[in-house]
Amino acid sequence: MTGGVGAEWVLVNASPDILSQLQATPELQPNRGLRDTGIAAIVLVDGQVDHTTGLYMLREAQRPWPLWCTDSTYADLTRGNPVLGVLAHFCGVDRRRIPLDDDFDVDDVAGVHWRALPVASKPAPYSPNRESPVQGDNLALVITDAASGKSLVYAPGLALIDEDLWEAMQAAAVVMVDGTFWTDDEMIRLGVSHKHARDIGHLPQSGSGGMLEWLQRLPQSTRKILIHINNTNPILDESSPEADELRRSGVEAARDGMEIIL
Amino acid sequence: MTGGVGAEWVLVNASPDILSQLQATPELQPNRGLRDTGIAAIVLVDGQVDHTTGLYMLREAQRPWPLWCTDSTYADLTRGNPVLGVLAHFCGVDRRRIPLDDDFDVDDVAGVHWRALPVASKPAPYSPNRESPVQGDNLALVITDAASGKSLVYAPGLALIDEDLWEAMQAAAVVMVDGTFWTDDEMIRLGVSHKHARDIGHLPQSGSGGMLEWLQRLPQSTRKILIHINNTNPILDESSPEADELRRSGVEAARDGMEIIL
Repeated sequence: MTGGVGAEWVLVNASPDILSQLQATPELQPNRGLRDTGIAAIVLVDGQVDHTTGLYMLREAQRPWPLWCTDSTYADLTRGNPVLGVLAHFCGVDRRRIPLDDDFDVDDVAGVHWRALPVASKPAPYSPNRESPVQGDNLALVITDAASGKSLVYAPGLALIDEDLWEAMQAAAVVMVDGTFWTDDEMIRLGVSHKHARDIGHLPQSGSGGMLEWLQRLPQSTRKILIHINNTNPILDESSPEADELRRSGVEAARDGMEIIL
Repeated sequence: MTGGVGAEWVLVNASPDILSQLQATPELQPNRGLRDTGIAAIVLVDGQVDHTTGLYMLREAQRPWPLWCTDSTYADLTRGNPVLGVLAHFCGVDRRRIPLDDDFDVDDVAGVHWRALPVASKPAPYSPNRESPVQGDNLALVITDAASGKSLVYAPGLALIDEDLWEAMQAAAVVMVDGTFWTDDEMIRLGVSHKHARDIGHLPQSGSGGMLEWLQRLPQSTRKILIHINNTNPILDESSPEADELRRSGVEAARDGMEIIL
């Protein structure tokens, strides 16, 4: 989520954990009325279950949610998994279209500029575009603080890093990127899936061309944080050699409640 | 959830809080393999958001979930809000039909018998049956321990108490019933909705013909527990006169982690 002191907040992706997140974050409980939250708008980077299921828990809002998403994600959430159709029976949404490769501002949330970069990843399994992905199925967000001019790149799903994204990452003060899998065959070796990381749109961290290799090419001053970490990823065990390698590389693993000031 | 020592468990309704419930309950974490839970099957009483959203969080199971529901609920979850269509892209479900007014046993979970009573309440807002409810849209469950012969009646949504249900309540050792609203106009007075309790299928607790009046007619030995308590209900404030009235009536408000032995 992004916001500032006394500001309205923007929720980036609505995780299934949203209720715990609200409970753990006093700033998001302004208590101006019943069923109030500090969230002014919601921005989605894709239509995946882990980014949208929290919308159900936000259904009792007093007004339709300003919901920013691309046309592809809107199709996922009205056709593949019609969460927005279900929400229409409750608070509903006031859908705003995220433009591709152009800046946008979220109403009522001043001081922050947004830019969406289409990235190569994978739309949700139930997406109408699953077998023929299009630009806008998955996004990276570049979030810039207007006062400091500093930016953060947020990209939870990345099958590869293209030129536009790499440019944004090089210019950013903070990058929060796909930390799903350590190795490409992690889920297969553990017997939980037949799929490789790359099959489902995630660049693994280790190995040649992996995420760590990319991150090491960024300036040392760039803060590098892995997000969207799968429960099969060995870095979650802080005593693992992989967690150790991460620390030595100057890369952090995100944790709940992390606060980043640009 | 129901189960016994060393037993498999049955999840009754999949709440949006399911992840917190699993984390808080060691018995449900047998850890026989990755992504394992102690849940052997799922039983649904209707297709409401608060009873089904947890299914998304259970999507990474290693086999399809045995999922017990009526034909009406199945229609809600394949047409109105196609959660089961989404799950088909993950673990999927092995759907079992709950018969109306007849006993059923849940495979692999011995020692417990189940009976579904159709009740008057309200199907989910997105249900194909919303405007013309049919038998089976909403259920009460009578769960009987085969060894002790004692039964529990579970009914989170009750617009009225009919003869069959009243008979089951009178015969039960424990009743866990609709505790959604204290008064019929509670949400209107608080300005959170234009709907009365009865409009959305819930008998209020107070007043003539209310739930407390019914519960007071049950034997004193019957354990009486209110469940499905809305956040507008004053009984949630333990210092309120309403909570006091509840205590004096010998009626409990359910709490997280409650364990009931029949």
